[in-house]
Amino acid sequence: MTLNQTLDGPPRILLEPFVRAALLEDLGRGGDLTSRVTAPAEGRAEAVFAARAPGAVAGLACAALAMEFIDPEISFERCVSDGALVARGDKLAVATGPARSILTAERTALNFLGHLSGIATATANFARAIAHTKARICCTRKTTPGLRMLEKYAVRAGGGSNHRFGLDDAVLIKDNHIAAAGGVAAALNAARDGAGHLVKIEIEVDRLDQLEEALAIGVDAVLLDNMDLATLKEAVATTGGRTILEASGNVTLETVGAIAETGVDYISSGWLTHSAPTLDIGLDFRS
Amino acid sequence: MTLNQTLDGPPRILLEPFVRAALLEDLGRGGDLTSRVTAPAEGRAEAVFAARAPGAVAGLACAALAMEFIDPEISFERCVSDGALVARGDKLAVATGPARSILTAERTALNFLGHLSGIATATANFARAIAHTKARICCTRKTTPGLRMLEKYAVRAGGGSNHRFGLDDAVLIKDNHIAAAGGVAAALNAARDGAGHLVKIEIEVDRLDQLEEALAIGVDAVLLDNMDLATLKEAVATTGGRTILEASGNVTLETVGAIAETGVDYISSGWLTHSAPTLDIGLDFRS
Amino acid sequence: MTLNQTLDGPPRILLEPFVRAALLEDLGRGGDLTSRVTAPAEGRAEAVFAARAPGAVAGLACAALAMEFIDPEISFERCVSDGALVARGDKLAVATGPARSILTAERTALNFLGHLSGIATATANFARAIAHTKARICCTRKTTPGLRMLEKYAVRAGGGSNHRFGLDDAVLIKDNHIAAAGGVAAALNAARDGAGHLVKIEIEVDRLDQLEEALAIGVDAVLLDNMDLATLKEAVATTGGRTILEASGNVTLETVGAIAETGVDYISSGWLTHSAPTLDIGLDFRS
Amino acid sequence: MTLNQTLDGPPRILLEPFVRAALLEDLGRGGDLTSRVTAPAEGRAEAVFAARAPGAVAGLACAALAMEFIDPEISFERCVSDGALVARGDKLAVATGPARSILTAERTALNFLGHLSGIATATANFARAIAHTKARICCTRKTTPGLRMLEKYAVRAGGGSNHRFGLDDAVLIKDNHIAAAGGVAAALNAARDGAGHLVKIEIEVDRLDQLEEALAIGVDAVLLDNMDLATLKEAVATTGGRTILEASGNVTLETVGAIAETGVDYISSGWLTHSAPTLDIGLDFRS
Amino acid sequence: MTLNQTLDGPPRILLEPFVRAALLEDLGRGGDLTSRVTAPAEGRAEAVFAARAPGAVAGLACAALAMEFIDPEISFERCVSDGALVARGDKLAVATGPARSILTAERTALNFLGHLSGIATATANFARAIAHTKARICCTRKTTPGLRMLEKYAVRAGGGSNHRFGLDDAVLIKDNHIAAAGGVAAALNAARDGAGHLVKIEIEVDRLDQLEEALAIGVDAVLLDNMDLATLKEAVATTGGRTILEASGNVTLETVGAIAETGVDYISSGWLTHSAPTLDIGLDFRS
Amino acid sequence: MTLNQTLDGPPRILLEPFVRAALLEDLGRGGDLTSRVTAPAEGRAEAVFAARAPGAVAGLACAALAMEFIDPEISFERCVSDGALVARGDKLAVATGPARSILTAERTALNFLGHLSGIATATANFARAIAHTKARICCTRKTTPGLRMLEKYAVRAGGGSNHRFGLDDAVLIKDNHIAAAGGVAAALNAARDGAGHLVKIEIEVDRLDQLEEALAIGVDAVLLDNMDLATLKEAVATTGGRTILEASGNVTLETVGAIAETGVDYISSGWLTHSAPTLDIGLDFRS
Repeated sequence: MTLNQTLDGPPRILLEPFVRAALLEDLGRGGDLTSRVTAPAEGRAEAVFAARAPGAVAGLACAALAMEFIDPEISFERCVSDGALVARGDKLAVATGPARSILTAERTALNFLGHLSGIATATANFARAIAHTKARICCTRKTTPGLRMLEKYAVRAGGGSNHRFGLDDAVLIKDNHIAAAGGVAAALNAARDGAGHLVKIEIEVDRLDQLEEALAIGVDAVLLDNMDLATLKEAVATTGGRTILEASGNVTLETVGAIAETGVDYISSGWLTHSAPTLDIGLDFRS
Repeated sequence: MTLNQTLDGPPRILLEPFVRAALLEDLGRGGDLTSRVTAPAEGRAEAVFAARAPGAVAGLACAALAMEFIDPEISFERCVSDGALVARGDKLAVATGPARSILTAERTALNFLGHLSGIATATANFARAIAHTKARICCTRKTTPGLRMLEKYAVRAGGGSNHRFGLDDAVLIKDNHIAAAGGVAAALNAARDGAGHLVKIEIEVDRLDQLEEALAIGVDAVLLDNMDLATLKEAVATTGGRTILEASGNVTLETVGAIAETGVDYISSGWLTHSAPTLDIGLDFRS
Repeated sequence: MTLNQTLDGPPRILLEPFVRAALLEDLGRGGDLTSRVTAPAEGRAEAVFAARAPGAVAGLACAALAMEFIDPEISFERCVSDGALVARGDKLAVATGPARSILTAERTALNFLGHLSGIATATANFARAIAHTKARICCTRKTTPGLRMLEKYAVRAGGGSNHRFGLDDAVLIKDNHIAAAGGVAAALNAARDGAGHLVKIEIEVDRLDQLEEALAIGVDAVLLDNMDLATLKEAVATTGGRTILEASGNVTLETVGAIAETGVDYISSGWLTHSAPTLDIGLDFRS
Repeated sequence: MTLNQTLDGPPRILLEPFVRAALLEDLGRGGDLTSRVTAPAEGRAEAVFAARAPGAVAGLACAALAMEFIDPEISFERCVSDGALVARGDKLAVATGPARSILTAERTALNFLGHLSGIATATANFARAIAHTKARICCTRKTTPGLRMLEKYAVRAGGGSNHRFGLDDAVLIKDNHIAAAGGVAAALNAARDGAGHLVKIEIEVDRLDQLEEALAIGVDAVLLDNMDLATLKEAVATTGGRTILEASGNVTLETVGAIAETGVDYISSGWLTHSAPTLDIGLDFRS
Repeated sequence: MTLNQTLDGPPRILLEPFVRAALLEDLGRGGDLTSRVTAPAEGRAEAVFAARAPGAVAGLACAALAMEFIDPEISFERCVSDGALVARGDKLAVATGPARSILTAERTALNFLGHLSGIATATANFARAIAHTKARICCTRKTTPGLRMLEKYAVRAGGGSNHRFGLDDAVLIKDNHIAAAGGVAAALNAARDGAGHLVKIEIEVDRLDQLEEALAIGVDAVLLDNMDLATLKEAVATTGGRTILEASGNVTLETVGAIAETGVDYISSGWLTHSAPTLDIGLDFRS
Repeated sequence: MTLNQTLDGPPRILLEPFVRAALLEDLGRGGDLTSRVTAPAEGRAEAVFAARAPGAVAGLACAALAMEFIDPEISFERCVSDGALVARGDKLAVATGPARSILTAERTALNFLGHLSGIATATANFARAIAHTKARICCTRKTTPGLRMLEKYAVRAGGGSNHRFGLDDAVLIKDNHIAAAGGVAAALNAARDGAGHLVKIEIEVDRLDQLEEALAIGVDAVLLDNMDLATLKEAVATTGGRTILEASGNVTLETVGAIAETGVDYISSGWLTHSAPTLDIGLDFRS
């Protein structure tokens, strides 16, 4: 089963720098000293990437690139696609080729797979918990430094939706911006005037009167920050579909269902990208 | 209180690429659109980095660089040093300068601080749990792709010790290498012959007879993988100080104390770097 | 007079790579051979950047960086800001310092200033021609390869507005996408479902029935491509404010006023960034 | 018809960074969002690059690389070579492959082709206007920042000749250098002494007495700056073939023929590279 | 005959940046002007890399990459492997393909081969001079800036052993560190406490009492700096196999045999990497 | 005494990448482990760069940058300038600042100084040997891969002159080009036609009839390859000042004087850059 029917990863030209950097930090100045001195040059192996825990898969393209960058003679065959839900023991992919090369690329491939599948798994768990509502789970800019593009992709692989990618692709007005601009209305008017016509504007509020002020001016989305369930419901009622409502704050696997049932459209969680544990994936050699 | 008396971070020239990359992924092609349209150019602010949960701090230099790269006019004053144990509410640092610039750098600074302090905190927790023994907690190569140098530093900041940094700075012979070389003795002899005299050699074993074979040849360290407590104790007794013993597998905050009490020298945990949750740190504006 | 009251250029960290690359292509492997052999090391100069034609200024930060990168001892004082309208002969800035260094940086500084001011000037001319209407002039993705960020900024400096910056920050559905998706409605529904909630969706149409189909589904903006004036007016009437209307095709300084008078909200022109001639700016030495 | 019989573009290793940078600025952090959500993954297309105006072609290798970098499965077949003169409607190349990938690479490919063909076309027009003389048209260092190598190549593709590529591959002594060195003779002697024996020396003069002084010392080329036609003729007569003469200043399609008829060897124009408008080239999908 | 039976070069991903940088510095902004204007595009050639002096070969992978990066149509067939001892006139490899491309890549390929084979040759000469002892020759950090990884590999190709690769993969305590730490014992204890358990610790001493102090504490290796032969022998006797002994200082082809005969384990020489002359290798065209 | 009165190094922006790369290969992923664990953070030192052998100095700017990049608090005071002739024991520069930082930067600074001063010294020795003639010593493209710019500068620092920097800044027609083009005259005519007017053309000949053919066509310089002294003299006589003559082949400190006395203008030597031994320079700590 695949969580995202239209999932399509970043093109190879965007992935290459991540994989190259990860390999270089592992190879250092001398390459894989252990394999060089212990494994004969001519040995070949078949190695299976397998899930050691249930979860959602993301990062197969990175794992494949890690193998290819070390040795183009390694063939990397996928058993599933990114976005697949796997059980403990399921095969993800099989790498076949020179044993020494597979050993060299192993850790980097696993580090990508584990990290990104961990995020996809966490997202899938949240998404399942709100599947009975219309709400969708989405990410934030609270990502691991340097890895945002991949982590945002992993959220999509897990069935989540993406929030803005950075400071430049959407306006998100927070409390300090409101204060600096002189109020909700002033901030929204300044944003509408200064941002291009293909840029969405969202405002973060923590009180209903701010929501009403924003709705009066007009806004593409409102982030309801740290509101309790009752207030969230009231916000939904007040809004009446006039804008997109996003809830954030205190979002856990336990709370997310109730938050979704308030009727908000999106629930955003930084935890998905900054704290989701790795998915345990191993590489088993057969030769 | 500081966890590591001789802690010294990587020199600035090693940190800069990490911080630059993280800022660039956030700034994208347009920079901070929200602050540009809502915050007046001349506004100034004082913003306090504060812990919202207890933990160990790491990453202040990255946070400082993020501020400096965005605007050299921001002053960044530290209240504690990396390696400090902080309580909920403790101030970590204060940034003072143009409000717009601080807002632009905020998320990147926090992402570094939260991620690295999360690792330092996890390490400190493990270290505290084994403080009554001679064992030390250490990391592995199971790190977030591209961030290994920083994550290894965060482990030191939390009072842990570093395992090898990559494939080239130490030999670690695992099961597949043993199989490829034709046994423990063959692998160790090949390693001693092929590695330089300033390279340490460690071998991973999962049975005591392998340990004995390794001790007979001589080796700098032995990684005891997934052994139960009784077997670990027996390994310690068998070894009698002839080499360094490192335990790995099923290491959690609950189990680590008992593992340490078996008498091993090091306990390594991939969880510290691939799954430690972020430490919650916030930035509070005062102006 | 300044054309854009809230103009704020990209932060220095985004500008540096452009200026460094331009200097490196000029310095090659040997640096400024001519100045080295003819100008004494100790000579100093004052050099004035002056407009040799009327226009709008953009790129002063790049010119300043070019001077600084060659020699931090050069002081670069601005007489105007980006976005200023200048007359023939107006001073833009004064560089003072070692003559040899100023000579070395001169051409790179002028190339940035001329190119970006050329775009700002063209934009300002278009903007003036439609100032009696509510329409705004904006750019496209038809930019010089590698310079998009700077050229988009120059459009803002000239009083224009920015269209999307790339393929990832907004959805723009064109004829081939409509065909691939199976019609206007299918494409819009797929976009709304697949794009995040902070991504705007625009569709390009060349017939009024397509516009009506899009309005029925709901869309953030519609690009009216190559419609004659009568059809544009009809599109405006049909839309009745339900979405943002953008006109494109055959936009010149002669036609833009009439297009704006049809009541559209935005007029986009690739010519601003791919064909605007340079603004003639010179550097006059005084020493 | 091809304008330059020995035209050979920069090797691929020099082109790749330009194309990669241009793709990355378009793909941003998320890739082609529109195609991903609207175009089915399996669709294929045939797309024709066609001239929408007459001109000279340059940049096919960049367009081909853009397609290849996005998707190696795209085949890119050329119908003409760089340097070809094409009429309105002529096919330049055909791209065949996954529709989604062609859509993603389209704009970058066209931006290269349009920009470089614009320069080639302008050059070809100037070259045609002076074809009845021995003079050749050449470029300057007034290029778009970062694109000099490609723009110099486009000048050659258009039948022009290249001036120096940067500050380090030839000496060009201008008025400020003459002043700094203490006169024409002093500057030339210093240059001959300080530059290597494989470096040409040119001096810019605006008066005939300076030309005579330079000829007396000996020089590889003299740039006659902003002289009227009569003075140019006198300079040619005075020189009598003793050096190469290059004219610059006020060079337009209208004036270039008369300048060439004065007998100078080269006419240099910054307009070719800093202000030539794009050549209108489109991509028409057939599937 | 091959000098190093398990020689395995750095993986391609580590070599590529070196070869790319070397080609780019040779191609500059214009590529191979001479070949472009003199050699017809269609010409083909067979060119033989041949030793013009006896020596040990290193760098074939770099030469092959240089050819491939310029033109993938060049086939590069090796006649020997890195580590081979060759006589004057021996063929090393044959490049076959477009003549223009081979001419373009020729100098870069030869510069790598000559430099690295020079180091391998010097190492092989030293190794031969001590082959009757148990000592091994090894390198230092006195390498050509930026080329350390390749030069360390060339030392292995010549039958030598590698010292540490940088400041981070082993501890080497020198006189200034001893002074800063407050003596040999203090330095060693600090090192053992602060360095990870997979990091070797070596200390440099110039007196026997320092050696004894180090042995008492325990250390992985001792560098005996600038000791005369008698003192070296005494050091060997004193040590009695308790640690690895390395000698340095005044190591030449004339002295190295006697030094080895003192019984030390390793002899390190900076000369191998900072001063070994190139091995004369030529490229002879046959077509 | 300074060997080159107008010596001016590459601007800092060109030097930085070399120094950064060299530091990074030394620092690896962990920085200076030894200094961190043995030297107290607060210690300060004064360290003197001193010549341990007579020679000519080059590379002080690189040494200074290495110190600055590691720690801006280090002050680096020069006692001499690049191009200075120094005796054994002469001070070159003094670094003062944090001891730990100086220790970290030491080796990189010395590697630059030693390598570049080695080349400058070799050049100065050759230059002295021909000082009684009008000939000048110059370099070739036989440089250490990646370091050409610095090595060419070191040649100038030693009083030598530079040959072309790469394949693109001058035409040098060799035997294979002559063969490909169909003879000396054909090659020269093709070069004159195809190369820009600011590109010099040199041809390599090994027979006098080729020289005469070249002189008849006209050429900027002729490289007389591997001719004996008598033939060189004849070549000088034949040429009679009509072009620049350069001799190469079998150039050593013993032969160079006689070659110069034949009357050639330049003598080129690859040995200067590919085989000159390092100049022994040390760093002595005073604190």
